[in-house]
Amino acid sequence: MVAGDPLRGVSIVGIGQIPVEKVCSRPLKSMGADVVKLAMEDASVDRIDALFAGNMLADELQNQKHIGTLIASAAGLRGIEALQVRAATATGAAALRMAYFAVASGESRLAVAVGVEKMSGGLHTPALAKALDAKTETALGATLLSQNARLMQMYMDRYGVDVNAFNAFSLNAHRNARTNPNALFKDKRVFDSTIRSSPVITPPLRLHDASPVCDGAAAVLLTRSNEARAYSDHPVRILGSSVATDWFRIDDRPDPLTLYAAAHSAHDAFRKANVNRNDIDLFEVHDAFSIMACLLLEAVGFASPGEGWRLAADKKIGLRGPIPIATFGGLKARGHPIGATALYQTCEIVLQLTGRAGRNQVKNAQVGMLQSVGGAASTVLTHIFGV
Amino acid sequence: MVAGDPLRGVSIVGIGQIPVEKVCSRPLKSMGADVVKLAMEDASVDRIDALFAGNMLADELQNQKHIGTLIASAAGLRGIEALQVRAATATGAAALRMAYFAVASGESRLAVAVGVEKMSGGLHTPALAKALDAKTETALGATLLSQNARLMQMYMDRYGVDVNAFNAFSLNAHRNARTNPNALFKDKRVFDSTIRSSPVITPPLRLHDASPVCDGAAAVLLTRSNEARAYSDHPVRILGSSVATDWFRIDDRPDPLTLYAAAHSAHDAFRKANVNRNDIDLFEVHDAFSIMACLLLEAVGFASPGEGWRLAADKKIGLRGPIPIATFGGLKARGHPIGATALYQTCEIVLQLTGRAGRNQVKNAQVGMLQSVGGAASTVLTHIFGV
Repeated sequence: MVAGDPLRGVSIVGIGQIPVEKVCSRPLKSMGADVVKLAMEDASVDRIDALFAGNMLADELQNQKHIGTLIASAAGLRGIEALQVRAATATGAAALRMAYFAVASGESRLAVAVGVEKMSGGLHTPALAKALDAKTETALGATLLSQNARLMQMYMDRYGVDVNAFNAFSLNAHRNARTNPNALFKDKRVFDSTIRSSPVITPPLRLHDASPVCDGAAAVLLTRSNEARAYSDHPVRILGSSVATDWFRIDDRPDPLTLYAAAHSAHDAFRKANVNRNDIDLFEVHDAFSIMACLLLEAVGFASPGEGWRLAADKKIGLRGPIPIATFGGLKARGHPIGATALYQTCEIVLQLTGRAGRNQVKNAQVGMLQSVGGAASTVLTHIFGV
Repeated sequence: MVAGDPLRGVSIVGIGQIPVEKVCSRPLKSMGADVVKLAMEDASVDRIDALFAGNMLADELQNQKHIGTLIASAAGLRGIEALQVRAATATGAAALRMAYFAVASGESRLAVAVGVEKMSGGLHTPALAKALDAKTETALGATLLSQNARLMQMYMDRYGVDVNAFNAFSLNAHRNARTNPNALFKDKRVFDSTIRSSPVITPPLRLHDASPVCDGAAAVLLTRSNEARAYSDHPVRILGSSVATDWFRIDDRPDPLTLYAAAHSAHDAFRKANVNRNDIDLFEVHDAFSIMACLLLEAVGFASPGEGWRLAADKKIGLRGPIPIATFGGLKARGHPIGATALYQTCEIVLQLTGRAGRNQVKNAQVGMLQSVGGAASTVLTHIFGV
């Protein structure tokens, strides 16, 4: 019961994000160092104890490992703790959890979780596919795209819905991205016809069912809740943090459309936060694919199996709906720079819960939820935030 | 002051290791799952809460990311938390620190740190070099070998010592490996003449100044100290855990022969553990290169600058000496399967502190120390263990 223990409570007191771009001209380490410094400035500190970095693809795309210390050094923070953490496509959330650990354990007073990804650096599809089993999935041609396409087809077959049943997820994301200055697609207008005419990538997945390849970085600064007011007038508390896993390969699962790890980690995070899903005012969902947004809404219990797409179609997921999702554009339209994604989402939840979300504001938002999916939903992290 | 807080104390209650081999015939995930199960059997548990996996090179050598969940699933542990953590060549120690975080924070009751590396899978040298700065070091030809060779040359020039000054490090490691059933070189006899005649790899580094490329996996199981006796008759406590970083590139440091991160993390770990270096009964040092063992002994204060090699030459580092190092063969002769290395060392320290080290036993060992070096000593982790 971490949330109930004042000695172990953890709060966010600083955020930093740079605009998501198709191609960022600055090197990876500078992008990371920039958002670390922004988060530190936001809390008016010039020193931190630890930095936990999320990055998935630099090994291949930048020939670079050792990202944590690389960023710490580039930010001028000689001496501090720095490590790298990963959970495939949920890597940003893994960095957040590690920073949470560091503060909750008493080992750090001020810890930054930073995520950075520069997907423009090279061939990203084969590198991303390493989130699957190399011998029994990737070697046989599977990619994250193909596995999500299979889930989508399975869903359409089981529930008798058409591919256009998913359109409203993309529409909602693009609508919200237009007023987010950090969104990749802030200048893009998307209509139902845009989605219907978008090219099929891997049947039945269309371009508009998938999130874009892009570059980005974001960071948050964490400290003990009982000291948070020294750094911020509007700290946001991490009420619950949880990770759960499923069988690694979707083909080994009893029902691939039931996201066990998502349900399990959500349940555990709700328990730790002492809230239930009716308390959630907004949900930053892992909409890397429209089918994934749909299945996560069902796994958490916001919709019954086979009904997730209706929440979108019935406009329940908009900023004024009962369960707003992707409030700043989501993975689909803010962009999904893998290792940075969950940290962008955390920054956005902080803005929402502190009434600073501008035209993207969800009214009276008190409790926000974040879910992050690694691979084909074999790893799912859930975080609950509150003020 | 973590060590003094009974609620936050963390102890090791299970260990698991498999023999280090030049080429292991089993897949990476099986090697990882095997040692996880060995550590669980050692503590008589059939379920854990979390698994933190250390691996540095599978991205390139096995086309595999997402190692934490891959191993958890292979071990049959559906549902548990699983993440991957890295710090270049100190990756195994990063996994240990994360498991420590998980238990100390109250988030996990039973957490495994597992390390696995299968360097036989392909071209390891370019993958290892990604621990350095891609743009300003690796792209110009630098490797971990070349940077350590530079440090060695610098040391020889400054202190006027000959390359053979370092021979006793290798001799000690090989002597201790002969009675370690898990050591790569358990059957090898090495003499001073062997070292003198070993080929030069990168001048002045000879083959015998470097640790071998190999495959291996090891794991430890952690729980709260106040519950440790439920799982083990001989728990070992983590008295201090610390990470520190230096400027990323050795060329940016005021003095490359002064290992700032090693000194800083050792100092911090001593403080947390409430011990000093005279209390250390054995030191599992990061002897990836003989020069690194020498510089670490100096950084921690076991020798003055320029005198580290004398500790070895004067036989102070043997099992009966005042500061035994590499007691089961070290990186040099047990082997250095990168992500697994610090977990092998932790298993060995546990055996020493519980009087189960057999012919490698250091008499009356009460306090053990572990140091792990990432890259060219830009990240150093120090752990102190006690009974």
